[in-house]
Amino acid sequence: MKYLAILGSTGSIGTQSLEVVREHPDKLKVLSISGHSNINLLEKQIHEFKPKLCAVMDKEKAKTLQSRVPGTTKIISGISGLSECACLEGVDLVITAVSGMIGLEPTVKAIESGKAIALANKETLVAGGDLVMNLVKLHHTKILPVDSEHSAIFQCLQGNIQNPIKRVILTASGGPFRGKNAKELVNVSMKDVLNHPNWSMGKKITVDSATLMNKGLEAIEAKWLFNLDDSQINIVVHPQSIIHSAVEFHDRSVIAQMGLPDMKLPIQYAIFYPNRLPNYSKSLDLTALGALTFEKPDTTTFPCLELALESMSIGKSMPVVLNMANELAVAAFLNGSIGFIDIPKKIESVMKRHQPVELENIETILSIADWTKRIFGSV
Amino acid sequence: MKYLAILGSTGSIGTQSLEVVREHPDKLKVLSISGHSNINLLEKQIHEFKPKLCAVMDKEKAKTLQSRVPGTTKIISGISGLSECACLEGVDLVITAVSGMIGLEPTVKAIESGKAIALANKETLVAGGDLVMNLVKLHHTKILPVDSEHSAIFQCLQGNIQNPIKRVILTASGGPFRGKNAKELVNVSMKDVLNHPNWSMGKKITVDSATLMNKGLEAIEAKWLFNLDDSQINIVVHPQSIIHSAVEFHDRSVIAQMGLPDMKLPIQYAIFYPNRLPNYSKSLDLTALGALTFEKPDTTTFPCLELALESMSIGKSMPVVLNMANELAVAAFLNGSIGFIDIPKKIESVMKRHQPVELENIETILSIADWTKRIFGSV
Repeated sequence: MKYLAILGSTGSIGTQSLEVVREHPDKLKVLSISGHSNINLLEKQIHEFKPKLCAVMDKEKAKTLQSRVPGTTKIISGISGLSECACLEGVDLVITAVSGMIGLEPTVKAIESGKAIALANKETLVAGGDLVMNLVKLHHTKILPVDSEHSAIFQCLQGNIQNPIKRVILTASGGPFRGKNAKELVNVSMKDVLNHPNWSMGKKITVDSATLMNKGLEAIEAKWLFNLDDSQINIVVHPQSIIHSAVEFHDRSVIAQMGLPDMKLPIQYAIFYPNRLPNYSKSLDLTALGALTFEKPDTTTFPCLELALESMSIGKSMPVVLNMANELAVAAFLNGSIGFIDIPKKIESVMKRHQPVELENIETILSIADWTKRIFGSV
Repeated sequence: MKYLAILGSTGSIGTQSLEVVREHPDKLKVLSISGHSNINLLEKQIHEFKPKLCAVMDKEKAKTLQSRVPGTTKIISGISGLSECACLEGVDLVITAVSGMIGLEPTVKAIESGKAIALANKETLVAGGDLVMNLVKLHHTKILPVDSEHSAIFQCLQGNIQNPIKRVILTASGGPFRGKNAKELVNVSMKDVLNHPNWSMGKKITVDSATLMNKGLEAIEAKWLFNLDDSQINIVVHPQSIIHSAVEFHDRSVIAQMGLPDMKLPIQYAIFYPNRLPNYSKSLDLTALGALTFEKPDTTTFPCLELALESMSIGKSMPVVLNMANELAVAAFLNGSIGFIDIPKKIESVMKRHQPVELENIETILSIADWTKRIFGSV
């Protein structure tokens, strides 16, 4: 039996993780869950999965939830509650499926408690890359990627531990606005943005996919996860999202992981690694697809990708700023206060104001994030 | 240092194997080589690689060659000479790069001597599948595939030893006549046939690629090499020959091996397995390719593929007959005595006359091959 903590159990990755648990009740047991504010769904999840602990961000909502569920599930609140869920005794694997920088602290705490991490929160590595990976080594634990691209790379590396990577090919769908030019993006609506062609995801990541920021964040995540130089990361737009990513080795052999877009596969792979359990979704039919196509990313129309790569190359605290500014810009876009094309403009303005510093510890990261929040309103 | 025997050193795979040896003189040493009749090339190879033993099929040519090279290389002849090269003491790995059924006996002898096999002679497994794989187990040795498709499957299986295979996707270029219909094939010339779009290979295998028999033989080889049911082998035409083959696991994850067509990669992988050494050929550029396409094989226009799959399903001695009849038909086509579309007709006629028997030992295989030779002229 494997014991799980699922941070962000009400989101897209969280609910799909619970589906995997539901399909394998003899192999998996959920000890703790957490959600931002959807206490109705948390209530249902508690009745079904009977975790020992459940964290809700808001204190009042936590109280309401406690009154609705049996006392065998303790309801806690705040960011400290999230960390408590992650570090709960008996948990083997923490699925970090919360969205945004909020995932950093509980992930770090979980690593310090020696927990294995199934990482679906890319912001953790974008902001904390070097520090987090060093903690993983120090505490002899591991990070198993859940993002479909990083899971693909991880799958391609199996059986090749002794073989140096020449480069990774990180594929991108190109999002709903692929092929458009900057002018055509001026008036795109929230509805246009949230209409992603291949993947069904949360709102934040769907906007990130439309701006291509998502691919930039993934590049930074890949750099840390697989110990790559910037030049070893090759982004290729592949609109069908069938090749989830690939690795080229020194012998010019490219190993690729393919499949129909389905997040349950990487979730399942991270949970049961290195074993592959049956998945009853549809098989890939290449002849039915007919063609897989590839093109270079358009960084003129989608400057967010360029900004992310620039922050990766600058390093130090710049990716923290990029990431936090992006979270704020996406939130502003989602609440209607800025337009789609303002997202990269806002991020770039914040980055220009920032003087990169070394990231000495997690507190430095959090203070840089705070600086970004303060400056964001004034750019 | 790894010590090699290269059977068929003057052919396409043989010369490319020697190129790999040339690039890694500190890691590889050739102890024996063999060729059919090209003694001029063998002479050059002996001067460069200084093997202890060299086999030539023809006795007279062997004598001529001995007179031209130093006595430190012993020249032997015939099929027994081929086996002697394969079993030479000190040889770690035998690269079986001869073409046709002639490869069976020396490969079996090498396995019985406990040698590892880098298998480029697909006829060995097409004819001797079950028997040969049992010998491999009995003598605690291994077969490393050199065919690009089987090498691809083998590469995709790395790190997945505990994971059952759902199916393999065996890719086929479709050959130079892809898209044509049966009528258009009536008058194709030898030159048309030998003009393969993607791969530079020997004549026999180039004809087999044009008839799609090659893919049928590969399916049978894959069945034995990877212990598959017939239904687990899925043949997909992929004209660009970039995805060399793929494996789908039970979780619906497909791992594919890709690269520009280059036989040196699978040769090198088999020699240095599980290590990947640098290869200085070109890297795959997906955006330059633009698209990879896939279609179903056309077994109406190319009945050889259907015949091969039929022989696989019938089993017992039928694949031996298929394979031998195909060798004879291809030879007849190459010497101009039959037309391209007569190849499947001849094979089918021989198969219809055959009453399948169990293959009890290698002698049964050889006698079935002899029966096929006798009957071939009369159909």
